[in-house]
Formats: sequence, structure tokens, C-alpha cells
Amino acid sequence: MSASAATPALVALDWGTTSLRAYLLGADGAVLDTRASSAGIMKLPAGGFDQAFEETCGAWLDAARLPVIAAGMVGSAQGWVEAPYVEAPAGADALVAGIVTVKTARGVTVHVVPGVLERGVLPNVMRGEETQIFGALASEPSLGASGGALIGLPGTHAKWAFVSDERIERFYTFMTGETFGALRDHTILGRTMHPAATHDEQAFVRGVDTARDAGHPGVLATIFSTRTLGLTGQLTAEQQSDYLSGLLIGHELRGLNEVLAREQSALAGKALRLIGNDALCVRYRAALARFGCHDARTVAQATEHGLYRIAALAGLIAAPVRAA
Amino acid sequence: MSASAATPALVALDWGTTSLRAYLLGADGAVLDTRASSAGIMKLPAGGFDQAFEETCGAWLDAARLPVIAAGMVGSAQGWVEAPYVEAPAGADALVAGIVTVKTARGVTVHVVPGVLERGVLPNVMRGEETQIFGALASEPSLGASGGALIGLPGTHAKWAFVSDERIERFYTFMTGETFGALRDHTILGRTMHPAATHDEQAFVRGVDTARDAGHPGVLATIFSTRTLGLTGQLTAEQQSDYLSGLLIGHELRGLNEVLAREQSALAGKALRLIGNDALCVRYRAALARFGCHDARTVAQATEHGLYRIAALAGLIAAPVRAA
Repeated sequence: MSASAATPALVALDWGTTSLRAYLLGADGAVLDTRASSAGIMKLPAGGFDQAFEETCGAWLDAARLPVIAAGMVGSAQGWVEAPYVEAPAGADALVAGIVTVKTARGVTVHVVPGVLERGVLPNVMRGEETQIFGALASEPSLGASGGALIGLPGTHAKWAFVSDERIERFYTFMTGETFGALRDHTILGRTMHPAATHDEQAFVRGVDTARDAGHPGVLATIFSTRTLGLTGQLTAEQQSDYLSGLLIGHELRGLNEVLAREQSALAGKALRLIGNDALCVRYRAALARFGCHDARTVAQATEHGLYRIAALAGLIAAPVRAA
Repeated sequence: MSASAATPALVALDWGTTSLRAYLLGADGAVLDTRASSAGIMKLPAGGFDQAFEETCGAWLDAARLPVIAAGMVGSAQGWVEAPYVEAPAGADALVAGIVTVKTARGVTVHVVPGVLERGVLPNVMRGEETQIFGALASEPSLGASGGALIGLPGTHAKWAFVSDERIERFYTFMTGETFGALRDHTILGRTMHPAATHDEQAFVRGVDTARDAGHPGVLATIFSTRTLGLTGQLTAEQQSDYLSGLLIGHELRGLNEVLAREQSALAGKALRLIGNDALCVRYRAALARFGCHDARTVAQATEHGLYRIAALAGLIAAPVRAA
């Protein structure tokens, strides 16, 4: 490489529904600078993409002419430009082939990474997570080997992706985070809750165990125990939120475990990876441990690594990358 | 009986969270007059019970001095007077023994029927439904026989009660109705829905079948298909609400079926009874049919019959009743 590693080489955008995170990356993928903005695509006025882009990245582009890559809901039908889904199974090459570009007001071309669609009786879609998954594979190439890996992305809409042969083979979406918020803020369950100063691990684990153990008739029934354990003096008002969180994450993992059981596998003893914010990954690790899974490491900087890897494969930067 | 059947003998109140329904009953239990009010207990100003009672029942009590019985959330900690739960298994005699009274401003005594609590790992509570269940038993005494009956009460918090030997043995609560509202009104699922002029039976049944059939990892995952079937052109915006309704009711029945399976029973071929509003019971009957249950009749006037029966057992009216 002719440029030093500290010379900016790529502007990489993680542009979702509620926020925009921008990274200035060096030729080796190192993060030289970051910007965070609340300019998520659902918060912008009509035609507001260009202005948000300028406010966030303008100074970087004034200083140097750089390629720009973006992933996330910015490529949805409600985004800046629609990058139609590529179909699973999908490798990084398919994502590169599906890139759609949009020209900004300052004349820069933004390369938008498509999401992934899995067809079937219950179709699934992701936008942004595919890039994080390939970032995880870039950091730990053995994950993408033919044996297969399971990668979890906790959040508003949690994803669990099965990866093998360097491809996203299939994935599930659990609306765990958003359902938690809707139940807490908009049903009777929230009325007896008091905010807690700290995370109550015991209440959380109790929720996980209740969801995991046999004998109940499903999540629509177990969630009511958030209220009745309070009524019978077994959960304080401060514990009810963490209990409900544990219940829902426990039901998610129970469902995942049932899927694994059909292929003679299980969470117990499995090695898997998590991508997401630290506090949430800590919760998931605690919940996974209740299912016998004690090897669930969090992948750091999956977003930056994924955007860098896809940009390199697309020829936007001259960087040494291994073949996809 | 000395009084004619058309002579008022009892004021019976079904007083819940969002509404108050009052019935003027004759000595034989016939409904002579009704009043409906939006004065649910959560809508009243502090101390508003007496005024709401007067506005709804005052004219009846001006005309005759009558006993008054009430069931529902009016007996909760947030109600007019708290009638502590009696514990399951509970017969009508236990409800009578648990009646708590409150004296109104006009000097009338209101007899408030307690709810039922089932202790356990997942405690359950009901208030109002216990009265409806004993109303159903009054209309169809064979239901209460030792063989046992299953009674479903669809709604915001659907209840499924196992009744035998004239007692509520145990029951489950599914937050189906309230979860549906929270998901539709406060998550991404509602954003792609358009209101439909009529119920779409096909979309509803598709949701029920999806929940019923094996292969998916639970309700937190299947609900996302409301959106993805729309994105892939398989559900119109108008169909998505009925599909989600079918999904949630299907998950409720699947969970109930799993409970039944543990006792070598099943919804398929089972005779059961429903108590609830007609439109909702029609939906549940259609969903139950997908589980092979084709004998799910709706019990009419369960509330009035239950209040009448408990009042008679409590000696508030002189009426012929069979022993509890």
C-alpha cells in the first residue's frame, strides 16, 4: 500500500431507522474518526438525506476525496435509494453485486449495500445485520468455514443467522426488544412496574428459567405472571421489568433451541457469537448460560469490519482481502 | 314464590375496568331491564363509585328496595371495596363465603363477589370470569359434573378454566387481546396495516394455521411474518391485521393444546364452551376448528346467570336453586 494506515481511505455509514453512525476508516480498516447522529431514516424530513450526510461527513470529504459505503435501512424502500434484497443463501459477493449507488449533492457516490431476504412460508428480511455478519467473519475467518456457525444479533428485532461456507444460509427474526417495549409501555404489565436503579440479575434469570422450563402454555400466558407474581408478593415493582425481559429473551432462546433440536443440535455446549451493544450482549450471555451455552463471545466492531470488507471486495479501496 | 316473575328482585352488576353493566333481574332470574355505562373502575374520579352507582341504578332502587350484587374489578384493590381472592379449587360456596359488602350513600348494601387466585410457579387470577363460569354451570349443569369441562373466555386477557365437581379447578390467562392491541398500535407491524372494512377469514385462518403448524420458533418470531408476507406481496395491507389476530389466537390455542397433551387430552374432538362477545367467539370457533375442535358453543347470558345464582346461594333472593 502506498498510503499510510493513518491516511483516510473510506467513509463507512451504518444508517438505520433511528440513528446514523459514520466511520472514517484507514486503508487497513482502522477507525480514524467517528460521528454519531440521530438522523435515522424515520426522523428525516422529505429529501433530508443529503443534508444529514453533509452534516455528518462533509468535513471528512472536504479534506479528501474518499469512497463512501453505507448499510442499513438507508437502502430500504423508505431510504435514500432502494437496494433490493438479495436472496439467501447469500455470500459477500452477492452483496457486492447488489450494491446500488446514489449521487449526493456534492457529487460523491454513495454505495448502498443491499439487505438479505429468505423466502419461505415465513419470509425473513435483514438490512444492516448482513454487513455485521460479514464483519464477524472477517475478524474470525474460521466462523465462516463449512462446519457452520450461529450468530445472534440481539436488539429491537433480534436476528439469529446460520452461516456456513462463507454464506448466510438462513436466519430468524424475533421481535423481542420491540415486544418488550410495547408490553411494558402499553399494557397492564407496565402499571405495576417501578423503574429500577440497577439491573436485577436474579429477577432476570427467574424470567429466563420460567420461559425455558416445560409446563407453561407459551409466552402469551407466561407474561401475565409478571403481574401475578407482583400481586402475590413474589416480585417487587422494581423487579418486574427485568423479569419480563428475562421471560421474553428466554422464550426467544427456547424457540431457537427447538429449531436446533430438529437438526440434532442444541444451545447446550454450542459455540456461538453475539453482535450488539455490550449491555444487551451481557443479558443474552446470562440467558444463554441457563440453556447450557457458555461460549457466546461478543464480536467487536462487526459493523466497521463488515463495511470495510464489502468496500474492499467491491474495489472501492485497494486493500488486501482474502477471497470471499 | 310469592312475587311474580316480572317483579324486580335483584340488582346485579358486572363492573369491570372499562365499563359497568347493570341488570334488573326478576325472582326467576329473568332480565327485566339493563343499563350500560362507561363508568369502568379505571375511569372514575376518586370516590366516584357511589355517583356512578346512583346514576346507573338509582331509578331502580327508588322504585323498590332490592338486594344488590356485583362482580368484576369493582372488588379489586383499586375497586370500591376489596374482596380478597379465594383460592382455587373454588366452588360457588367459596365465592359466597368470600363476599365483601360496601354500604352506599343511599344506605343500600352492595355485595361484592371475590375473584379466584390459583397459586403456583405461575400464579393466576380472575375477577368477574368466576361469576360467568358459575353462570354457565347454572345454564348447563352437566358441565360441572365430575368428568370435567373446559370453558374459554376470550378477551383482553383470555381465560381457559378447567371445571369439575362444580369447582374451578385451575385456569390459564393468555394476554392475547391486549398483546394484539399493543403490537398493532405500538410496533412496526401496524405501520404497514390498513384498516379493512370486513373480517378477512382467509387471512385469519392463515395466521391460525401458521401458529399451529410445527417448524417455527415461537410467537416472537412468527409475528414478524405479518410484515414480511406484506413485503413479499403475499398479504395485502388490509389483510395484515386479521392475519396477526389469527396468529395470536392460534398461539394461544397451541399452548392450550400442549397443556391438554400432558394429560392425554387434546382440543381435537373436545366439547367445550365459550363465554364472550359474539364476534370474538366466532373467531375463536373458526380457530378451534383448525385444531379439530368443532363443538365450541357460546354460553348466552353467563354473567346474569352467574350473578343470579351466587345471589341466591348467598340468600339475597328467595329463589329455587340446586345445591352447590
